[in-house]
Amino acid sequence: MAKQQKSVKVIFLGGVGQIGKNMTAIEYGDDIIIIDCGVDFPDEESPGIDAIIPDITYLTENRDKVRGIFLTHGHEDHIGAIQYVIEDLNVPIFGTPMTLAMLDRKLVERHIIVDARTVQEGETAIAGCFKVEFIKVTHSLAGACAFAITTPIGVIYHSGDFKLDATPIDNKPTNLQRIAEIGSKGVMLMLGESTNVERKGHSDSERVAGVGIENIFASHREQRLIIATFASSNYRVQQILNIASKYGRKVILSGRSMKGIVEMGSKVGELTVPNDIIVESPGKLPFAKQIVLATGTQGEPMSALTRMSEGEFGKINIGSDDVVVLSSSPIPGNEKSVYNVINKLFKRGAEVIYESMNDVHVSGHAYAEELKLMLTLVKPKFFMPVHGEYRHQYLHSKMAEKCGVNPLNIAIPEIGAVYGVNQKTMKRQSNVTAGNVYIDGTVLDEGSNIIRDRKSLSENGFLIVIVSVDMKNGILLSPPDLLVRGMSMSPEALESAKGIVENAIATLDFVGEVIDRSRITQAIRKSLKRQFVKDRHFPMIMPIIYEA
Amino acid sequence: MAKQQKSVKVIFLGGVGQIGKNMTAIEYGDDIIIIDCGVDFPDEESPGIDAIIPDITYLTENRDKVRGIFLTHGHEDHIGAIQYVIEDLNVPIFGTPMTLAMLDRKLVERHIIVDARTVQEGETAIAGCFKVEFIKVTHSLAGACAFAITTPIGVIYHSGDFKLDATPIDNKPTNLQRIAEIGSKGVMLMLGESTNVERKGHSDSERVAGVGIENIFASHREQRLIIATFASSNYRVQQILNIASKYGRKVILSGRSMKGIVEMGSKVGELTVPNDIIVESPGKLPFAKQIVLATGTQGEPMSALTRMSEGEFGKINIGSDDVVVLSSSPIPGNEKSVYNVINKLFKRGAEVIYESMNDVHVSGHAYAEELKLMLTLVKPKFFMPVHGEYRHQYLHSKMAEKCGVNPLNIAIPEIGAVYGVNQKTMKRQSNVTAGNVYIDGTVLDEGSNIIRDRKSLSENGFLIVIVSVDMKNGILLSPPDLLVRGMSMSPEALESAKGIVENAIATLDFVGEVIDRSRITQAIRKSLKRQFVKDRHFPMIMPIIYEA
Repeated sequence: MAKQQKSVKVIFLGGVGQIGKNMTAIEYGDDIIIIDCGVDFPDEESPGIDAIIPDITYLTENRDKVRGIFLTHGHEDHIGAIQYVIEDLNVPIFGTPMTLAMLDRKLVERHIIVDARTVQEGETAIAGCFKVEFIKVTHSLAGACAFAITTPIGVIYHSGDFKLDATPIDNKPTNLQRIAEIGSKGVMLMLGESTNVERKGHSDSERVAGVGIENIFASHREQRLIIATFASSNYRVQQILNIASKYGRKVILSGRSMKGIVEMGSKVGELTVPNDIIVESPGKLPFAKQIVLATGTQGEPMSALTRMSEGEFGKINIGSDDVVVLSSSPIPGNEKSVYNVINKLFKRGAEVIYESMNDVHVSGHAYAEELKLMLTLVKPKFFMPVHGEYRHQYLHSKMAEKCGVNPLNIAIPEIGAVYGVNQKTMKRQSNVTAGNVYIDGTVLDEGSNIIRDRKSLSENGFLIVIVSVDMKNGILLSPPDLLVRGMSMSPEALESAKGIVENAIATLDFVGEVIDRSRITQAIRKSLKRQFVKDRHFPMIMPIIYEA
Repeated sequence: MAKQQKSVKVIFLGGVGQIGKNMTAIEYGDDIIIIDCGVDFPDEESPGIDAIIPDITYLTENRDKVRGIFLTHGHEDHIGAIQYVIEDLNVPIFGTPMTLAMLDRKLVERHIIVDARTVQEGETAIAGCFKVEFIKVTHSLAGACAFAITTPIGVIYHSGDFKLDATPIDNKPTNLQRIAEIGSKGVMLMLGESTNVERKGHSDSERVAGVGIENIFASHREQRLIIATFASSNYRVQQILNIASKYGRKVILSGRSMKGIVEMGSKVGELTVPNDIIVESPGKLPFAKQIVLATGTQGEPMSALTRMSEGEFGKINIGSDDVVVLSSSPIPGNEKSVYNVINKLFKRGAEVIYESMNDVHVSGHAYAEELKLMLTLVKPKFFMPVHGEYRHQYLHSKMAEKCGVNPLNIAIPEIGAVYGVNQKTMKRQSNVTAGNVYIDGTVLDEGSNIIRDRKSLSENGFLIVIVSVDMKNGILLSPPDLLVRGMSMSPEALESAKGIVENAIATLDFVGEVIDRSRITQAIRKSLKRQFVKDRHFPMIMPIIYEA
């Protein structure tokens, strides 16, 4: 046992092999801390699902050891699973004021109370044997931090999500001096985010998006401006409010989350709302004197912008006097929905300005040269790329090699992987239970059968076969009834299927045996399947047997 | 009637409001010609569907007038629907040798024989009162043409899909002189493709992709190279064969369509295969002496590349001695599948080179400056942007304005729209039937109910409620049976639902009335729905009533 305790265990429960659902556990002796606790959003591979969260079996099995959850920042893929897991874990949650305020907005709605512990940028929080220093980094929202985690046997540096914006809106750039200091003292292991490793050069400053947006104000003085952005992007919102003030326009906030975040950002001091700039409703203001600040940049069906594009947002009727700006870019997988909204806005006569053609958005994640700089400053002995699909992690691992990390000291973690790390070695250990847990409505379940059934139903439909069988003799008492949904069957095909069912039951040989339902069920399924496969149909077949 | 004949009708059956499924009909008096006849590929909005083709009701209703189908080039979104509609229309099909050869490959498989009429680039074909001149344009495959259609009352210029590659692989650039000549004589109406209107500047020459690929050959002399590209991109294939020959490597063709297209391209003279370069199997060739040329750049589940990435492509086992090149870009909507394949190839140890980071692909569609040049040369009186989503069409229409087309002479056509055009006016007329026809297996149907059911099933699942009812008294004879698929229900929820069904039937008041099944069915649906909605579940509910 003594030997085991010489390594820190790093356990990947999410955020590797993908960009969403971040969650990493760090364990030493009897202590575990959790870094981030995010959701992933469903796609066509998980139809009808509300959210996907990490499987925390390992943590609930080791609940006594868990000392706290540390949040790098307030984005959903880092905090969104807390509402689903905190009752099971029941530990303190550490974050900056902005991060905790964002979390609180979600928890309040669900009447969940947590033990939230505010940590300011630059401060260190202690949990069990770990000391976690919160280091300010620039990202697309305030309160984002990297963590320098001092364990009893060495320092782990977790990059969080970051970019190196030398001219941020709050004039507080990434604390490179402190990172350099930590690096020069020696970092045992670095976990580095990989999102934009494919992009060459250096990301643009948040101010670049501001300039692009101001140009639109300058060149569209008569029209109403409708600007959509992520509610969580407080710096973007700040710039838009400032520009509106400069150009003498009032701001109408549209969408519940936009209102909530403006209120919350002001409260924690991360947003300064110019005096009297926000109005509840446009009243008699001319279009030239107003802007609408809205959510819905991802084409979400119920969002303000989508409803405007469909003419179903009562207060705001989009027309040819509107300029709609999407200060955002589509999250991969959302392209179709986003472009649908853009197409519909154009159809209503609006001028639509979006990222493809204009500088109205910048990324919050470091590009290649920034990632290299971070590797150079931290100079870790061991390195693991996180927060990316495998291709990002792979490219980031090659980058680390070029930046001087010994290739033998680099591992690409996957979900469920456990590594034992100390100053000398990094060893892969047995995996722990990990994966996706699906949230559907209020029900939490492992969901795999349900998802599989849904996918099959969506591609193939189903067929119910109702038969009434004389269980004494194993014969059909009346012609079978067939019910089809989600599949096309001609009347002839239906008749033919009935014949197949009749024949399948008639040729069952029950002599000397108990007549059992399962044999009838199987016979119906097998005979119909054979027929359907010929036509390349694969419906779910559900025989219902009435015994008489 | 005489008055009506003074306009040419332009009828949009596809290819507007979207990039796929191109089909435009042009009608004058008793003559109709069809330009292109393409498919669209299904997405999550049309689960389980094989292909989507245009609704050709208008054409079958006017079958006597239809004189022919003219194909601008051989891509699926321009020729893919012919196999489904040609039996109904039964007219000659006009195209260049390459286009007809590509069509023939598909039709032969299905034993469909058509009246194909070869038209060389530069030639003019006559159909009814129309003269269709085939004008060579550069695109991502050979045999691509724009059409100058001389009608009795003026010329219609259809751009086809094109780019302006001044240094194409076959040394036959777009015939700008001829287009200029047609423009200077006067073009009544231009239909212009809009795909890349959002991209600034000028597209790169096809040769740029060749240089990028050759750099990979030069810098990876020891590894096996696996290069995936669109089988239809004969110029890309030509360059890869030439480079392989220069670097002394043999080529193994992988994927049925790649083999077919190489054979077919050679036959029509659009591909020159260097002597002895293609080998059936690598035999004992070292990796340094071979390349594999494969299909599957879109992450198609059954393609060579996807199967290689999953280790299920018997002959080729991807490992760390492989360099995989995707000489392509993901078609919008395919991003997730493509990146899944890339992730899996990296996991197998291969080096993967793809568009995000390397110049290994160029687009086949004109960028903004090329579109402007085309508008300037053709100088049409009337203009309609086609081959794009609404946003592309809108931006293209604004571009046409800037290029001197009178804004009143520009229309953005949508599916089903009909315009009457002559030298003086362009008037919108009543729409014709148009839209999507879904192909599911071999069955052709209008499909909307089926698609709606499939989408509902994929998000919500279904619940079958089986009740046995004494129809004399309207009472339940035994507890209801419930069958659930694609939805999560706890045993308690199931029991509660049974109670709800029992209660619903018990409270039905049949006194003095005929007991009818539909009232029972409705009562079951209504009562369960009320309960499910509370939990935000919306399953398809299917009551099955047994009368006893």
